[in-house]
Amino acid sequence: MAKSPEEEHPKKAFGWAARDPSGFLSPFNFSRRETGEKDVTFKVLYCGICHSDLHMVKNEWGVSTYPLVPGHEIVGVVTEVGSKVQKFKVGDKVGVGCLVGACDSCDHCAKNNEHLCPQMILTYGAKYHDGTDTYGGYSDVMVANEHYVVRIPDNLPLDASAPLLCAGITVYSPLRYHGLDKPGLHVGVVGLGGLGHVAVKFAKSMGLKVTVISTSINKKKEALEKLGADSFLISRDQNQMQAAMGTLDGIIDTVSAVHPILPLIGLLKSEGKLIMVGAPEKPLELPIFPLIMGRKMIAGSNIGGLKETQEMIDFAAKNNITADIEVIPIDYVNTAMERLVKADVKYRFVIDIGNTLKSG
Amino acid sequence: MAKSPEEEHPKKAFGWAARDPSGFLSPFNFSRRETGEKDVTFKVLYCGICHSDLHMVKNEWGVSTYPLVPGHEIVGVVTEVGSKVQKFKVGDKVGVGCLVGACDSCDHCAKNNEHLCPQMILTYGAKYHDGTDTYGGYSDVMVANEHYVVRIPDNLPLDASAPLLCAGITVYSPLRYHGLDKPGLHVGVVGLGGLGHVAVKFAKSMGLKVTVISTSINKKKEALEKLGADSFLISRDQNQMQAAMGTLDGIIDTVSAVHPILPLIGLLKSEGKLIMVGAPEKPLELPIFPLIMGRKMIAGSNIGGLKETQEMIDFAAKNNITADIEVIPIDYVNTAMERLVKADVKYRFVIDIGNTLKSG
Repeated sequence: MAKSPEEEHPKKAFGWAARDPSGFLSPFNFSRRETGEKDVTFKVLYCGICHSDLHMVKNEWGVSTYPLVPGHEIVGVVTEVGSKVQKFKVGDKVGVGCLVGACDSCDHCAKNNEHLCPQMILTYGAKYHDGTDTYGGYSDVMVANEHYVVRIPDNLPLDASAPLLCAGITVYSPLRYHGLDKPGLHVGVVGLGGLGHVAVKFAKSMGLKVTVISTSINKKKEALEKLGADSFLISRDQNQMQAAMGTLDGIIDTVSAVHPILPLIGLLKSEGKLIMVGAPEKPLELPIFPLIMGRKMIAGSNIGGLKETQEMIDFAAKNNITADIEVIPIDYVNTAMERLVKADVKYRFVIDIGNTLKSG
Repeated sequence: MAKSPEEEHPKKAFGWAARDPSGFLSPFNFSRRETGEKDVTFKVLYCGICHSDLHMVKNEWGVSTYPLVPGHEIVGVVTEVGSKVQKFKVGDKVGVGCLVGACDSCDHCAKNNEHLCPQMILTYGAKYHDGTDTYGGYSDVMVANEHYVVRIPDNLPLDASAPLLCAGITVYSPLRYHGLDKPGLHVGVVGLGGLGHVAVKFAKSMGLKVTVISTSINKKKEALEKLGADSFLISRDQNQMQAAMGTLDGIIDTVSAVHPILPLIGLLKSEGKLIMVGAPEKPLELPIFPLIMGRKMIAGSNIGGLKETQEMIDFAAKNNITADIEVIPIDYVNTAMERLVKADVKYRFVIDIGNTLKSG
């Protein structure tokens, strides 16, 4: 018989888990494996709340298993390293994002694209190589193979850098992959939430001209004055949209609700690229003619590989990029999830694990 | 008052034109401009019938003006060149495709992408720089600026190379632009018609592995044995499609009817590219999640620039690529249009202008 989560590994761990699709999170005793030869063990200090955590605790994608400890924007301080670990030592500031493993031998892994490996192992809600369930960062301790651990540079505050591990890489990677990182290019960012506000920061630091596109005029001041965007378009204002036709080299679309993309395709120059990083549950309407006439494209993108994640963090450190966050104690997490449904956060909740998560 | 088509230019010309959205074509006297300094005048010998000719004569895209002389797969022999023409001389075999002009000064034109120029001038149904209407290749003579004329290498038969000027470049360009031209890559070709059959030939000559994807089992033998495709998938056979999931680096989708693209996205490897060169009139359903998870993309593509069109023709000549055609006399053209509606042609009609178009 399979051992219980509390008994299957030797190292005691404590976190908050959802037990069923209600998604309600509550204290949960489980365990972590011993620090293996190539493993890094770290005390979790902060963990961001990603929108996908919300989907997963409620099994909205139909793939959740329970108990489920969410969290894949995890930062902390190394407490133990395996005998063959080369990159980290005790006391280092580190983080783990969406992945804790992959096959490490396929073409994708060979090209540092572990996130494209068919056997990639998600940080929570998946099966690790040893067959045990993976548990995320709403917990006091993490153990991960050093390949899947990134270094957090000293000048980055741990709390506000946690969201970079998912939100940050999700918007950084497509800017690089699709060549939308050349100074002077003009990109649009659709939706100003957890992903969008970080996209503006990265794009500006790459030297791009940035236009924020939003349904809400309320975000204009913040976009222009606080985040440094160059211009702002109300997507429902046809005059504004018409005037901006054909002006953008690329667009990062962070919206996960069903929405029209024809106006966005219209905003692109010929050869422009519309990158979808939000994941609407239903198909969108795709008009083909406007794509064809301007040799435009629509691409999807989802996080990035580990090498690129480290590059992203280093770039963030160099350019003082962090997420705008609201730090919360662990016992506020269910309320935070409710507020997240209403997009009532600027722009990311981060759980203060180190100071507020206390076992029994 | 504007002069009549027959009087507005000094050079007499004769062709077949549609006079209204019935699309019925009949003899038409008009005129061409004198050979300008940079112009090439040529006697038209053959002209392919493109599916877009059918849309245009019937005003199905709502942009047609009448009288309309269709035809943008035009080949013939040079009869006169202007004083500053450098590339051509009398007697040369030449062709004109979809474009006869552009602004020649924008970024796109500077990069040899005249087909992306906002001021590009279509070969028929458009206004030329001098304000007169452009008339296509269902006619006895063409006059075009040499920049928009391509050379047809001697070893290519004129009749069977005519369709390369639209169908050929339409499938060749995206293979090059999207890097789907590396030997050993595996591409799919959806739809085996005028575009698709040429796509198979180009892809095979580039050293690619080619899978034809079709709704019709009837095309299997032809695809594999005559065109040289490596494999064949019935798009409605879920077992076949399932077995081929994740195997293609790219797909050239030539289908202009509304059709599901989710199965095609599924056939792509991670980072695979689905290129749409057919233009369904209604939007397709675009599922976002499958795009995101494999960093896949969907792009549109439409013909190519003049430099690339010449490259394509030279590549075709080197690799003995021509279209499979049915040569028809001009007085069969209305019947051919009716057959084209039913896709009853293997694979392209070409009008024998030189031998069958006789004025008065």
